[in-house]
Amino acid sequence: MFSPAVENLVAQLTRLPGVGQRTAQRLAFHILQRPADEALALAGALAEVKERVRFCSDCGNLTEDERCAICVDARRDHTTICVVEQPVDVVSLERTNEYRGLYHVLGGALSPIDGVEPADLRIAELMQRVDANGVQEVVLATNPTMTGEATAAYLADRLRDRVRVTRLASGLPVGGDLEYADEVTLGRALAGRREMS
Amino acid sequence: MFSPAVENLVAQLTRLPGVGQRTAQRLAFHILQRPADEALALAGALAEVKERVRFCSDCGNLTEDERCAICVDARRDHTTICVVEQPVDVVSLERTNEYRGLYHVLGGALSPIDGVEPADLRIAELMQRVDANGVQEVVLATNPTMTGEATAAYLADRLRDRVRVTRLASGLPVGGDLEYADEVTLGRALAGRREMS
Repeated sequence: MFSPAVENLVAQLTRLPGVGQRTAQRLAFHILQRPADEALALAGALAEVKERVRFCSDCGNLTEDERCAICVDARRDHTTICVVEQPVDVVSLERTNEYRGLYHVLGGALSPIDGVEPADLRIAELMQRVDANGVQEVVLATNPTMTGEATAAYLADRLRDRVRVTRLASGLPVGGDLEYADEVTLGRALAGRREMS
Repeated sequence: MFSPAVENLVAQLTRLPGVGQRTAQRLAFHILQRPADEALALAGALAEVKERVRFCSDCGNLTEDERCAICVDARRDHTTICVVEQPVDVVSLERTNEYRGLYHVLGGALSPIDGVEPADLRIAELMQRVDANGVQEVVLATNPTMTGEATAAYLADRLRDRVRVTRLASGLPVGGDLEYADEVTLGRALAGRREMS
């Protein structure tokens, strides 16, 4: 409609998750109306991120070095590994300030229906880490979804006789209301009830 | 959290409209997990669009040349100018296949509360075009919103004694239900009722 350059930008933007034709058009027009240095700053950030950022050779988290800041930190507890699906989950767990161990980023969850098999995730690397480095506990922190639970069950089966395996608690979200909890969550909260001290 | 490059990409993405911190993070992680050439294609499209695309010197629409494809098209009716707020509105009107005249893109709508005054829009350019080129009709196609209506009223006042001024009809959307129409729209549909032929 306008020009090949605009069409191309719209096409590139629609490849982003959650961005359809209309959103891409809106973003493209916004970019066209802003000063050029804004668009160039975004373009530069895209190029730089692909050039500089890679996956930690130990845990699979994002880093600009060979190993990530958490894996090289001697003050962290190197006998505990928390297994998550994505790098963004590491951010969420770090924000709690409750965890001092290491991480292992799988890069997804098992989902045969989407063709995600164990070999597609960083599971072999996890097994190696557990065997090699005196690890005493693996905390399974995959999402409490169908695929996340299946992944946790699969890993628990493979790890159980090598190391202590735990799973994040399911239950009522803090600040939530019993009335609005779904029955599965409430059932989990009941099953996981704890002695009050 | 991860690396300065990721932080920078997230920061750049949050400058896009409708993209908050969480969405920007999700987009950044998506980009990190895709092959580098996808990110570079988007980066290239951003740079190219700012390098190649400019505003038509006549109508203010987007173009890669001095004048846009519509303004240079001799088969279009050069005596009619349709005034719209944004380039994207030209796309919508062209899709109808009902309009054969030219356009004039204001670049927004009058909104004193947001500091958008007549001098901030391409209104002086519109007056010049109307005076210079034998224009017979100006179709006001600003949005049927508060600011779009105000802009249409302002332009009608200034144009009325020079040229025929019309406004897009307001009324029930085709396929819509009387039951679900808001009272303002229904009132407009009543006021604008037409003889059946």
